[in-house]
Amino acid sequence: MRTSIATVSLSGALTEKLTAAARAGFDGVEIFENDLLASPLTPEEVRARCADLGLSIDLYQPMRDIEAVPAEEFGRNLRRAEHKFRLMERLGADTVLVCSSVSPLAEDDDALAAFQLRRLAELAEGFGIRVAYEALAWGRHVSTYDHAWRIVEAADHPALGTCLDSFHILARGSDPKGIEDIPGEKIFFLQLADAPLMAMDVLQWSRHYRCFPGQGGFDVAGLVGHVMRAGYEGPLSLEVFNDVFRQAEAGPTAVDALRSLLVLQESVGLTEPPAPVVPTGIAFAELVTPDVEPLSEILEALGFARTARHRSKPVDLWQQGEARLLLNTGPAARRDGTQLAAVGLESPDPAGAARRAEALLAPVLPRRRAPEDAPLDAVAAPDGTELFFCATDRPGLPSWTGDFEPVAHKPPVAGGVHRIDHLALTQPWHQFDEAALFHHSVLGLGAQESVDVADPYGLLRSRAVTNADGSVRIALGVGAAPSADEGGRAQHIALATDDIVTAARRFRDAGGRPLPIPANYYDDLAAKYELADGELEAYRELGILYDRDADGAFRHCYTETVGRVFFELVQRDAGHRGYGAQNAPVRLAAQHVRRPVR
Amino acid sequence: MRTSIATVSLSGALTEKLTAAARAGFDGVEIFENDLLASPLTPEEVRARCADLGLSIDLYQPMRDIEAVPAEEFGRNLRRAEHKFRLMERLGADTVLVCSSVSPLAEDDDALAAFQLRRLAELAEGFGIRVAYEALAWGRHVSTYDHAWRIVEAADHPALGTCLDSFHILARGSDPKGIEDIPGEKIFFLQLADAPLMAMDVLQWSRHYRCFPGQGGFDVAGLVGHVMRAGYEGPLSLEVFNDVFRQAEAGPTAVDALRSLLVLQESVGLTEPPAPVVPTGIAFAELVTPDVEPLSEILEALGFARTARHRSKPVDLWQQGEARLLLNTGPAARRDGTQLAAVGLESPDPAGAARRAEALLAPVLPRRRAPEDAPLDAVAAPDGTELFFCATDRPGLPSWTGDFEPVAHKPPVAGGVHRIDHLALTQPWHQFDEAALFHHSVLGLGAQESVDVADPYGLLRSRAVTNADGSVRIALGVGAAPSADEGGRAQHIALATDDIVTAARRFRDAGGRPLPIPANYYDDLAAKYELADGELEAYRELGILYDRDADGAFRHCYTETVGRVFFELVQRDAGHRGYGAQNAPVRLAAQHVRRPVR
Repeated sequence: MRTSIATVSLSGALTEKLTAAARAGFDGVEIFENDLLASPLTPEEVRARCADLGLSIDLYQPMRDIEAVPAEEFGRNLRRAEHKFRLMERLGADTVLVCSSVSPLAEDDDALAAFQLRRLAELAEGFGIRVAYEALAWGRHVSTYDHAWRIVEAADHPALGTCLDSFHILARGSDPKGIEDIPGEKIFFLQLADAPLMAMDVLQWSRHYRCFPGQGGFDVAGLVGHVMRAGYEGPLSLEVFNDVFRQAEAGPTAVDALRSLLVLQESVGLTEPPAPVVPTGIAFAELVTPDVEPLSEILEALGFARTARHRSKPVDLWQQGEARLLLNTGPAARRDGTQLAAVGLESPDPAGAARRAEALLAPVLPRRRAPEDAPLDAVAAPDGTELFFCATDRPGLPSWTGDFEPVAHKPPVAGGVHRIDHLALTQPWHQFDEAALFHHSVLGLGAQESVDVADPYGLLRSRAVTNADGSVRIALGVGAAPSADEGGRAQHIALATDDIVTAARRFRDAGGRPLPIPANYYDDLAAKYELADGELEAYRELGILYDRDADGAFRHCYTETVGRVFFELVQRDAGHRGYGAQNAPVRLAAQHVRRPVR
Repeated sequence: MRTSIATVSLSGALTEKLTAAARAGFDGVEIFENDLLASPLTPEEVRARCADLGLSIDLYQPMRDIEAVPAEEFGRNLRRAEHKFRLMERLGADTVLVCSSVSPLAEDDDALAAFQLRRLAELAEGFGIRVAYEALAWGRHVSTYDHAWRIVEAADHPALGTCLDSFHILARGSDPKGIEDIPGEKIFFLQLADAPLMAMDVLQWSRHYRCFPGQGGFDVAGLVGHVMRAGYEGPLSLEVFNDVFRQAEAGPTAVDALRSLLVLQESVGLTEPPAPVVPTGIAFAELVTPDVEPLSEILEALGFARTARHRSKPVDLWQQGEARLLLNTGPAARRDGTQLAAVGLESPDPAGAARRAEALLAPVLPRRRAPEDAPLDAVAAPDGTELFFCATDRPGLPSWTGDFEPVAHKPPVAGGVHRIDHLALTQPWHQFDEAALFHHSVLGLGAQESVDVADPYGLLRSRAVTNADGSVRIALGVGAAPSADEGGRAQHIALATDDIVTAARRFRDAGGRPLPIPANYYDDLAAKYELADGELEAYRELGILYDRDADGAFRHCYTETVGRVFFELVQRDAGHRGYGAQNAPVRLAAQHVRRPVR
């Protein structure tokens, strides 16, 4: 199917929007009237710019408050419409969106609405223009798609059809099955938007909270299925009013938007991109740092050993059980300070995973960094984290471990960390929803519910994506508003242990500095839970936090922060799917008290 | 009445919150449990800190999911409560908030709820603690204040009373009149919050959108009246969960919070602060600028003349009709660039206006800047703008004009600008609601509805405050999120004319550079309105924008921007109350195309 996007969905001036849409790969655009009015380009220049960019103009929108009004008012409306049809001629747009009236002048009279829409269509026909009539969810008398269709049917004019909008249909709770009763050629246009499920005023919901398909709670794919079965052959077009997207850079938003349409087409069987290859574990996490000392001290105290060194680059491999961390002191580190730069995902089919990612518009990174390196498939996540698809020490496939030369080291300690439990990655503020959709669609990870977490200086949101057995867990986090706040931007690596008390005690006894947790927290734990003898005392001594739900317990503690990065020790009962969100406010407050090491 | 605030209403660590509350002048605080848990201070240290700051601890909160549960569960709840009562002893808090249960274990059994709450009260009594039971609007079985009171009444224990929360009562739409049937001594606590009227899930509404009384749409004062008539003698306490306040600096938020309680007490007749003195006009607007040239050129082209110079400071008075602008090139200008720094409000009683402002916690500025200056009463608005209360050339009162020495100038041109129509001031992002409340309560201006305006790079909000005859109009604006965007932070001065075409033409012919408006805008005007012959052409030629509603027309055009400041020419039909919001997106887009002069 052809893909299109309404210019209102993207930030910036009209030319920026058009450029972003074309670069992302859209086939066409809907020109939102206010974007044209505010542009210094003439309609002819906009037409030429779209042609240069390879974009068709699929829709001009909207025309409002046209139908079911007294004759004199309708005369003025026709005059207004004629102006717009002339404009559309100059623009080269052949379909116009007419929204059902919200005017207090509009009468509850379907026959009058049909009569006047037919008149409008007759006028449009003379300009070679088609009129697509759409029911706004808050239309004065016409607010459902089937009602709009009945009026179109009654008007019975070839230049008049209907426009379906997934938001207006699904926000009203209408059953989209009836769409199949509309002849496909009378569905002139299809606008798609998702939205989080919210109990709120539908106009406000629509104007501020729409999002791209797959980011919200609507069954947009199901609706598209019905539209396809009706025989619709026009473009799939995104029309999203969203306060965040209005502020976000147009380029990345356009890419995220098109990705949502690609995933949507796959889910209704319209396309078959390479299938997702779900990662089966975390092969490694790579930290860049300008100074290896503070991280090395923490890793040693945690029981990690430096087991290998990259053959050609300043990168060390630190290992404990299946937990592997790369410490990179290369040039990027000196530029960006200490941060989590890359994640190795253990993949059943690295090349297939990369093909999937590329098909879904993830930027593909060069397979080899240096001639002597093993080829590795990698893409960039929306937050810039590099994702490597790995086959660690598996026969027949190149392994990243081959680039490393073992170095002498002490044998690992028993009963320490055995793998990475999860990674927590702070996302760019404007791309939180996109990040979840990226990890879901590109990597095939399932998204858990979003949770709010109170930091002393603002509310944070967190949403985890995981594979089925929990061997890959990534917690995506974001602040409540754009902010330079250090705590909000921190990333962390959570390390799984089977015995957190032993692991935390060893860390402390080896000179590690656990994040201090206030005594008041433990008084509260004592009030909430009856813990075994000595358990509370050990937690208090070692700064261990405790959470429990019906699926078991979650025990965790934290190291200090180096640059943007800190570590967490986690002892997770088998069924527990949480991340200690209940304890996060206490942890965040403690981190504000204790500033990062550097 | 004593005033109190819940720590959850303010940003930061517990100690920051306490300090901010005390400095603003609150008498006491509610300690929100999570703030204590996250604090490194012991309960004894918190108690001592509060005592040092002169704050009482009026409430410890909340205890949840206590009542109407199976016996075994209730046993655990009592154990938990005993822990908390011990903690409250250490803290020196004698009242605890118990919220109606949301637990799935809770039974719909008022007798059981009363029996268990009585047991809880018996336990509390031993610690000298009072239990205040409150109906959450989303409580599982108890969600209205009268239901909670019936249970308290049935439990019949001196250590058990009810807590009333204006949000929970008014969000449910309950009639607060019934409060008067509760004996005052059984109302153990009163929590106050306002909220904008929104049709949304009540839990989300409560957790994210509460605001201070007077900032929202609830009749909080009416509710307080009922509570007073019931005989309540405890504190008026603010409990506000608000995403914005969580991020805002605690100090200013605490001041705004206390101001809201002062205004509330006045409105229910509990206090009598000096009465508001509503300004009757705009005496002057003062611009600071490091370089007087670009502004002088614009003012000259607009028909202003430099009529006087300050006797001792580098400040010029430019005048045209009743429109007076001060251009200040003093030290502040070199620090902050060109901006609107002060507004002179014509006041029937300048000293009275200043007394009102001071009583409502506005920072009072020194009356005399230099020994030779006329004494002037002035305060700072929340955005830092200095507000001078002026008596311009009125007998018996000092006039600011006396500080100025007339200079020779050309006679004013006829038919130009005659006064300042309005000022548009961008507010700090975190203080938009506070700004409206400040202007309303301190200056006695009426607040109009808030409107959204689409800037190409994000949604802006604007809300005007005016006096009754429209001779003082201030449009308060804010971006959708904290942002360094230049357009969002701009301020402007709108100048009233009776003939905008003549005024705009003279401006252009005198070398002024009007903000260019796209031709597409005028095509749309032609479609929308049938204007008189030549009218559209004149607008197009001069960059004049046009808006019309039932109350008449609004015509306006803009100069280029200097620093943060630009000017608008306005021709307003007598009844029109708007500010051209419909045209704002076009103006904002044009300003992004045309960057400020410096």
